[in-house]
Amino acid sequence: MNNLRIDAQRLWDTLMETAEIGGTPKGGICRLTLTDLDRQVRDWFKAAAEAAGCTVTVDDMGNMFARRPGRDPGLPPIAMGSHLDTQPTGGKFDGILGVLSGLEVLRTLNDAGYETHAPLEVVNWTNEEGSRFAPAMLCSGVFAGAFTREFADSRTDREGKRFGDELDRIGYRGTERCGDHRLSAMFELHIEQGPILEDEGKEVGVVTGVQGMRWYEVTVTGFESHAGSTPMHLRRDALLAAARMVQAINTIGHDHAPQAVTTVGLMECRPNSRNIIPGEVFFSIDLRHPDDAVLARMDGEVKEAIAAIARESGVEARVEDIWDSPAVRFDAECVAAVREAAAAQGFSHRDIVSGPGHDAAYVARVAPTAMIFVPCEKGISHNEVEKIEFDQASAGANVLLQAVLSYDRTLQERAR
Amino acid sequence: MNNLRIDAQRLWDTLMETAEIGGTPKGGICRLTLTDLDRQVRDWFKAAAEAAGCTVTVDDMGNMFARRPGRDPGLPPIAMGSHLDTQPTGGKFDGILGVLSGLEVLRTLNDAGYETHAPLEVVNWTNEEGSRFAPAMLCSGVFAGAFTREFADSRTDREGKRFGDELDRIGYRGTERCGDHRLSAMFELHIEQGPILEDEGKEVGVVTGVQGMRWYEVTVTGFESHAGSTPMHLRRDALLAAARMVQAINTIGHDHAPQAVTTVGLMECRPNSRNIIPGEVFFSIDLRHPDDAVLARMDGEVKEAIAAIARESGVEARVEDIWDSPAVRFDAECVAAVREAAAAQGFSHRDIVSGPGHDAAYVARVAPTAMIFVPCEKGISHNEVEKIEFDQASAGANVLLQAVLSYDRTLQERAR
Repeated sequence: MNNLRIDAQRLWDTLMETAEIGGTPKGGICRLTLTDLDRQVRDWFKAAAEAAGCTVTVDDMGNMFARRPGRDPGLPPIAMGSHLDTQPTGGKFDGILGVLSGLEVLRTLNDAGYETHAPLEVVNWTNEEGSRFAPAMLCSGVFAGAFTREFADSRTDREGKRFGDELDRIGYRGTERCGDHRLSAMFELHIEQGPILEDEGKEVGVVTGVQGMRWYEVTVTGFESHAGSTPMHLRRDALLAAARMVQAINTIGHDHAPQAVTTVGLMECRPNSRNIIPGEVFFSIDLRHPDDAVLARMDGEVKEAIAAIARESGVEARVEDIWDSPAVRFDAECVAAVREAAAAQGFSHRDIVSGPGHDAAYVARVAPTAMIFVPCEKGISHNEVEKIEFDQASAGANVLLQAVLSYDRTLQERAR
Repeated sequence: MNNLRIDAQRLWDTLMETAEIGGTPKGGICRLTLTDLDRQVRDWFKAAAEAAGCTVTVDDMGNMFARRPGRDPGLPPIAMGSHLDTQPTGGKFDGILGVLSGLEVLRTLNDAGYETHAPLEVVNWTNEEGSRFAPAMLCSGVFAGAFTREFADSRTDREGKRFGDELDRIGYRGTERCGDHRLSAMFELHIEQGPILEDEGKEVGVVTGVQGMRWYEVTVTGFESHAGSTPMHLRRDALLAAARMVQAINTIGHDHAPQAVTTVGLMECRPNSRNIIPGEVFFSIDLRHPDDAVLARMDGEVKEAIAAIARESGVEARVEDIWDSPAVRFDAECVAAVREAAAAQGFSHRDIVSGPGHDAAYVARVAPTAMIFVPCEKGISHNEVEKIEFDQASAGANVLLQAVLSYDRTLQERAR
């Protein structure tokens, strides 16, 4: 184990410098993908990477690869990647920390004159947020073969502008075909966007995978009638039945705790009038679990519970499956490299499964991949008040540095 | 007893004609108070009343009074009143039958050249439904001194529009101060909106009073966070807590059955996004019972239950009392006039207490008042399928006609 450490102040200054590109009065960033502000931060990134001696290439989905050569130019690079685009009311760290920490790693290695066996690359993935062009993680998705380039080009924003046209407009349509760029591995540093690490006082999360997720839409149909003149025993109250379903869905989440999460986040009551017994209620369900088998069991339990409650309540309930995203398990060797890097530097850490999706979840389909989490205040993200401490950013970047170097040593030993 | 009868076909045609103003594909009406459609039906009513020789005045709450002169211009008028506004998914008869039957009574008297002792008036009360601007019966309430005009003006709809601004916008802010308009009496014909008359095969309900009711607004505040990364045990889910409250409120209704009814009819979830744990839920409560003492007990039980659930769920709940309408007993003389009018015309009838609130419940505070009920199919109301038969409408209007004429004779005798 070497004694290299990143320059925490330089990393922080770089975070604050780029935060001004699209910076908001509330201290957040509004830097939607493929806007002029996105071009501005891309130009900044290209210049900074070249100043650090890198060669920057861009693929035809706008994904940017800043390469620092290694001793063996034949080896595919070890990548450090995330995204520089943000939500409309995004914070200063979501995605950005992962890209700028990668840059800081390269700068640190330059200062130390440290030569790696494999080339290293910092990757800026296009449109991770999916806020302007749905879906999210669009171009890491194309990179991994989850979407076609034609599908990506055809996505439109609310004004009807096409992804492909906007990519051309800002001048970041590269020549390399997206997906042809081979990687030896990828490590993504990201804020947790949840409260677990902070709650347990852990400095680092060793991300072992991304949980599976299923979305549903439920329509409960009862019978609308007058609140003042319909006796309790004659009612078919859609909201009362939906209320029972919300509780059952919550209970199923607790039954499969600690790893399961179940959420009803959206509900509409119709006709939604104070003195009318609700005739129809529409709500969404979000089920997540790291293990697809358990998720499948939860699916069955939820559907059974809804059907039973509908029967007892004298209402009808229609459940529609609208999205199924299987669980991702990261590469054991990459995860071990992260865990050892955290331990070797004395950071308190725990294994954790990501709740949100990330570019790494798609890249894992085509290259050994792992993620590093650092806590963020109260787990708040996708919010201008999103906040991490100087030391937390530094810890994450140092774990990224050492994980990459240890994986590089593994490749070197393998080459022997 | 005279042999006057209303023109049933003309009444029915008038009902169907106005039903087109805000008519829905399902055969109901959506004519929320103070919307452009409300203005349209008000304009229609004013024109129709003037065509029947009436003078139409409007007070500063938008209540409309269509006056047919009597022999004694000094006497306050005998009113026939109800409302022309509807629920978002309302039927064709709720309120409307009472106003248009009043108009039909005047037309019948015109055809017969019948001169009453007291002036007669048809009243259209503003915002009876309370669906857009809570509380219900707002402007008969101001008329009776239950609310101030300032309170009424300051009510806002869910988009934040003020009652006063919308009243000005549609041009129905009259000059007469609401409440200054004296009445000798008021008779309100209305559909029962419950199943009792139909069950017992009665053609007419002689309404002796209205049950007490209380309305509340509850705001539950939890904590917004990411559905994918917030473990079940760290959640403060406002919707889950609200779901428990909805069930507790329903249970309290059953505890006081058969006379009690409790309803949560309106609910809004915020931010209402599929992958965000709800941070705030707003909902309404409607409690009713014929006995004010029991209603007061229910009030205490509901507030206790909400407070307990909030504590257990780690959320905050603010409960606001927004409306308290005590049980009402109608004027004995007016009730007798209705009962005799029904009997004299050979209609099967019974005394009944109203479950729903009505403008008459407030007007009864300032003038002798009674109501006439006619059955509606299956007791269904506040629903686009709300339905009554041609003969039922006719029976109600004939009872209204004779009750008003008999009360007019009473006033005449008293004057002697």
